[in-house]
Amino acid sequence: MQNPSELNKNMLEGDLQDQVLKDYHSDLGITQTHGVKLAGIRTQSGYDLKELEVCYQTLGVLSPRKDNAILICHALSGNAHVAGLDPQNRRPGWWDFHVGPGKSIDTDKFFVICSNILGGCNGSTGPTSINPITGRPYATDFPPVTIRDMVAAQVRLVDFLGIPKLFAAVGGSMGGMQALVWALDYPDRLHACIPIATCMAHSPMQIAFNEVGRQAIMTDPNWRGGHYDDHHRPEHGLAVARMVGHVTYLSEYSMHQKFGRKLQRPPRPEDLFPDFFSVESYLKYQGESFVKRFDPNSYLYITKALDRFDLLEGRHGRDAVRHVQARFLIISFESDWLYPPSQSRELVKTLKRSNVAVTYLNLETPYGHDSFLIRNPDFSRAVSHFLNSEYRSLGA
Amino acid sequence: MQNPSELNKNMLEGDLQDQVLKDYHSDLGITQTHGVKLAGIRTQSGYDLKELEVCYQTLGVLSPRKDNAILICHALSGNAHVAGLDPQNRRPGWWDFHVGPGKSIDTDKFFVICSNILGGCNGSTGPTSINPITGRPYATDFPPVTIRDMVAAQVRLVDFLGIPKLFAAVGGSMGGMQALVWALDYPDRLHACIPIATCMAHSPMQIAFNEVGRQAIMTDPNWRGGHYDDHHRPEHGLAVARMVGHVTYLSEYSMHQKFGRKLQRPPRPEDLFPDFFSVESYLKYQGESFVKRFDPNSYLYITKALDRFDLLEGRHGRDAVRHVQARFLIISFESDWLYPPSQSRELVKTLKRSNVAVTYLNLETPYGHDSFLIRNPDFSRAVSHFLNSEYRSLGA
Repeated sequence: MQNPSELNKNMLEGDLQDQVLKDYHSDLGITQTHGVKLAGIRTQSGYDLKELEVCYQTLGVLSPRKDNAILICHALSGNAHVAGLDPQNRRPGWWDFHVGPGKSIDTDKFFVICSNILGGCNGSTGPTSINPITGRPYATDFPPVTIRDMVAAQVRLVDFLGIPKLFAAVGGSMGGMQALVWALDYPDRLHACIPIATCMAHSPMQIAFNEVGRQAIMTDPNWRGGHYDDHHRPEHGLAVARMVGHVTYLSEYSMHQKFGRKLQRPPRPEDLFPDFFSVESYLKYQGESFVKRFDPNSYLYITKALDRFDLLEGRHGRDAVRHVQARFLIISFESDWLYPPSQSRELVKTLKRSNVAVTYLNLETPYGHDSFLIRNPDFSRAVSHFLNSEYRSLGA
Repeated sequence: MQNPSELNKNMLEGDLQDQVLKDYHSDLGITQTHGVKLAGIRTQSGYDLKELEVCYQTLGVLSPRKDNAILICHALSGNAHVAGLDPQNRRPGWWDFHVGPGKSIDTDKFFVICSNILGGCNGSTGPTSINPITGRPYATDFPPVTIRDMVAAQVRLVDFLGIPKLFAAVGGSMGGMQALVWALDYPDRLHACIPIATCMAHSPMQIAFNEVGRQAIMTDPNWRGGHYDDHHRPEHGLAVARMVGHVTYLSEYSMHQKFGRKLQRPPRPEDLFPDFFSVESYLKYQGESFVKRFDPNSYLYITKALDRFDLLEGRHGRDAVRHVQARFLIISFESDWLYPPSQSRELVKTLKRSNVAVTYLNLETPYGHDSFLIRNPDFSRAVSHFLNSEYRSLGA
């Protein structure tokens, strides 16, 4: 029987999800997600979403003092199923190696919440939801959403769960942006914050890679301004978008380790080009499997939210950070060229200038941006140590 | 009146070509390209191309001793028009700042040749050429070509021009690969070699970015296995491929300088997303203008040639390099993350181990892979100094 630690060694994002892991064992066993209807929000763009549906998972038990809740925020292609096994396909959650009894985010001690983001396509309100006005899916009539709108939806969920103040918000990449918004915009509702491999605002290069993906989707003839039907989705465009993304999540090292210049198979007569590299086959597979589980419009909305995100929103760092009460553990990865350590250091500086308590860790893992999704003892130890010592400091 | 040096300052690939440069002055004035029919070659894949058409440009005068010829090899999106003004649109050649009277590749002294590559779509035999068997364009019936096939076509041209031995072969990126093949495969026909921002074989990451571009083209419904007609070309796919490429040619720095997070224009009511960053508009424009001047199949063939290229072809470095007579100037750019300096250093090591004379220069220019297309005094000085001192050493 394989255990998560072995499986995650040298694995990259997507691998875990896309394999049939029959013998995979999770200490959490089967874990469920739930859907709940909550009061709507007004988006930053001024649109009134009358009602919110939020899909979420909770693990562990909320303490009587309600002081042990950790919100885990997922990244672009993630969902609410953070750990344990999916009841249908028995696939483990995207952070199963990290979250569970005795793990670095210890469900014996903490009450873990993970919800699908607003604008997503895995159970929460988004472009695939039914527009109450038309009775048909919103598609591109869905209002533009921002990272702050996503957090507003999370606030509704946390209210619904009866939690006045989160112990921690944790997330990598886009999840890190959400954790940062909790710290800045809801200062009295967060004790600790762990933003991982993230930034305060996308650089033009980060925007550019997302824009390539969006153009791939929007120029797919099946996109039709976003009003495609289920049988004619812009799958080619979405697959190409996913491939671009995938390349940027990896590192030179991980690609060398994983593929090198290996050829996938001997040439076939029908091949236009006789050489077919393993890395080509891998990317193609990643693209094709992604389209089965993701909505193209959702991809547009989410990447746009990423690109528009600006933690400071024009304010001076000192003003924006003034009310922050949370204590921070900030983590970056040396080989992450998409969200490079320099962006995390800028965040550290901005917080430290206002005397926010920050521990910063730049890890040498060689797996690029995907490092936060790959098991790494240093990473786990740092998160576990920070959470436990912060929780002790609460007097809990 | 603007001169090339001012124009090229802070300019990136494509900018020059895509602007109407009415007042642009080139010391070379109008320069012509010529087409010539040459005896065919057998490609590495074993296909007999009965006849070759090669489009080329020459500048300067061949010396009576025929010892002053410099072959300039272009990169993926380049062509034979290396310097001077195009007779039709008066646009300058892609290396005009570098090539001309008194410039670093001095046409008062050297006889410069530049030809469009085999497999290209700018006048030389390629997928858009007429297949003599069918009377229609080859499209994807064109045989796969390799960098070595491209060089074989150049050898035919150099023979036709009556030049027994090139003084130098110079090229950046894919052009550098061609220069390297001249040095290794035609050792007695080359005196000096200047490979710039290139490598001995693509890494999986370089292959991956090209594969994303290929997938974008091949999944465009207009591609139809390559047999599209002029009115229904896979333009969306090609535009996306160009966009991916473009992002990889730039650096964080050049993107910050050029775009930052600037917005292109105020939002319009029809905008799906209100923020429209300058970098998005730039990429879209680059993609759209590229499709007007480039053939999608050609893009597939050339990128595949790049990915398949392996200078050593399985041989030990010492064996492959044993017969090299050329002396080398190898140049890389610190900010080039697509063809990183480490690849050039590997090349330097391979050559030096066999006692080939190599001068290596890693320049600090911040413009990424595009650096070789951007005016830079250190770059020009190094090339000029190397060429002049090597030419003196010939006793010329």
